[in-house]
Amino acid sequence: MTDETYMRLALELAQKGCGRVSPNPMVGAVVVKDDRVIGSGYHRQFGGPHAERQALADCRESPRGATLYVTLEPCCHWGKTPPCTDAILESGIARVVVGSGDPNPLVAGRGIRILREHSVAVTEHVLQAACDRLNEVFLHYIQSRTPFVVMKYAMTLDGKIATAAGFSKWITGREARLRVQQDRSRYTAVLAGVGTVLADDPLLTCRLPGGRSPIRVICDTHLRTPLTAQVVRTAKEVRTLLVCGSTAEAHRQPYLEAGCEVLPLPEQAGHVNLCALMQELGRRQIDSVLLEGGAALNWSALQSGIVQKVQAYLAPKLFGGAAAKGPVGGSGVSTVQDAYRLTVSEVTPLGDDLLLESRVIPCLPA
Amino acid sequence: MTDETYMRLALELAQKGCGRVSPNPMVGAVVVKDDRVIGSGYHRQFGGPHAERQALADCRESPRGATLYVTLEPCCHWGKTPPCTDAILESGIARVVVGSGDPNPLVAGRGIRILREHSVAVTEHVLQAACDRLNEVFLHYIQSRTPFVVMKYAMTLDGKIATAAGFSKWITGREARLRVQQDRSRYTAVLAGVGTVLADDPLLTCRLPGGRSPIRVICDTHLRTPLTAQVVRTAKEVRTLLVCGSTAEAHRQPYLEAGCEVLPLPEQAGHVNLCALMQELGRRQIDSVLLEGGAALNWSALQSGIVQKVQAYLAPKLFGGAAAKGPVGGSGVSTVQDAYRLTVSEVTPLGDDLLLESRVIPCLPA
Repeated sequence: MTDETYMRLALELAQKGCGRVSPNPMVGAVVVKDDRVIGSGYHRQFGGPHAERQALADCRESPRGATLYVTLEPCCHWGKTPPCTDAILESGIARVVVGSGDPNPLVAGRGIRILREHSVAVTEHVLQAACDRLNEVFLHYIQSRTPFVVMKYAMTLDGKIATAAGFSKWITGREARLRVQQDRSRYTAVLAGVGTVLADDPLLTCRLPGGRSPIRVICDTHLRTPLTAQVVRTAKEVRTLLVCGSTAEAHRQPYLEAGCEVLPLPEQAGHVNLCALMQELGRRQIDSVLLEGGAALNWSALQSGIVQKVQAYLAPKLFGGAAAKGPVGGSGVSTVQDAYRLTVSEVTPLGDDLLLESRVIPCLPA
Repeated sequence: MTDETYMRLALELAQKGCGRVSPNPMVGAVVVKDDRVIGSGYHRQFGGPHAERQALADCRESPRGATLYVTLEPCCHWGKTPPCTDAILESGIARVVVGSGDPNPLVAGRGIRILREHSVAVTEHVLQAACDRLNEVFLHYIQSRTPFVVMKYAMTLDGKIATAAGFSKWITGREARLRVQQDRSRYTAVLAGVGTVLADDPLLTCRLPGGRSPIRVICDTHLRTPLTAQVVRTAKEVRTLLVCGSTAEAHRQPYLEAGCEVLPLPEQAGHVNLCALMQELGRRQIDSVLLEGGAALNWSALQSGIVQKVQAYLAPKLFGGAAAKGPVGGSGVSTVQDAYRLTVSEVTPLGDDLLLESRVIPCLPA
């Protein structure tokens, strides 16, 4: 068996923490001795023991002289739990194989250095791309302290998110819509604009059995959300944040009584300042946001530079219509060279539809 | 070796006729004896011998008792060449393995029946899906007598074919644009609207070394194409058809002098009647059309029911812009249920871009 084989096993374990460890990373660990797995573990929930400690505690025999495979660099600082490097050194592990480095300023290579200083052999970067991808949310959040934002939309093969008459239910099929439900459970918050609330009156919850609903964040500069809206009526069950401009603060009382939180923020050209919003969400430990906006909010988000990833669901149909909306509105870019650039799309077939996922390539300052 | 193995070989041979046999089908044939290929051939050019005769003539030893693999049902009628069934029966071939059936009303199962009546064993439908796909143009044209129309467009991941300011050069990268050049050589004609001519002044030729340029068909109801347009200036080198409404016929003289053909057709709501155009192109043995239209022409084509296939090139970029054009304009459908339905898209990566190809699912009359 190769290092990659065991790392893949650690990756599979890590994934089991999905939706439960935020804003911590998902981490998996496997202890291998004489080419046999003698223990394994993963970070199960926020505040609980780290994967390395779980794997060591799980060992059927002494881990002395064994190799530890871990998807992320072991921590070397006191957080909610003691440093993992201590546990590794105590266990007598001879070699540690690491996937991603931990960019957390409290770790950032120190975990690996401490191990090496104590004569533990360390191999880095094994399946790093897959490990980085697994924790794209964490790797972004720990560095920027703002949430990882995924702009999600469903469109026809001719780029429409609604017919010219405004109908959009449903563009995609069952499998694609199920995937959106899973993602609502996976990301910490969902963000929509008041326009969507007024047009569709959505719940924005996760309807999967046992699924965790995301915190609902509604951009509503002038607090136009009706008190009868589903998001307001269910605010006592599912955390709901109404983000308004400073002038609307006076009207917040009925929303507070309904169980909503109201967050007034400075306005920018008549809209909520999305960069300020992301900083505030980050301060509240919201590490990820699924942006389920309409065309106008999507453009504002893109222009504010807060979007890290695009999820485009493509349905094999055509609406046509010069007046039918596309996924990103606003003023748009002027020249082709000004386009927001994305990485090559990863394609996932979902029933008859396709999910195309790309990362936004950050603009370099000119 | 299985029947499929030899049929795959026949398919590869058939493909070599691409762009040279229209409006005939591409056909490949392989003669196999004692599990050895003793002869092979393909239909090389319109008017030349059929694949079956090529393969039989190519045999290194007597084909008596051998098996003939052929991608399309052998013909049994006199066209430009004598019936292939005659040649097969004379050769002493014992078994024929067929991919697609030939829907040509002059054949349509008769080729196979004649072989069986003369005690030749026939196996049908081997790799039929691949054989049908290879000849999607022929299979459509031979039945409808109208061209197979491919609606092609390049858009961003947010469904825009131009920026809000109207720029579109280039949305896709080199590989995708090369593929379009290949397709211009593959399909018999290219169709654009006068709007595209006025906006971009395109050549619409195939610029690949040795590539055949398609017949250029321009929809120009009122003959607004400038005499200085590239398509007019090169009309003596590359066949160019200006399609106008009956009222514009009087102004055609200067275009004729420039080398264009002018085709007046009845108008429909102020535009060229596209169904009538397709019937006329079909009569002129134009079996396939690459529709490189703008948003308005694409919608008209879709609405007229003349489109068989959609080729959407997707570039990993975002333009945004409520006013930026999508690929299909016009009035569009009203409800989601009214959408034009497509088959699940086939995905081909081309450099950083993706090519998504779908067939249009014909509407059933209500």
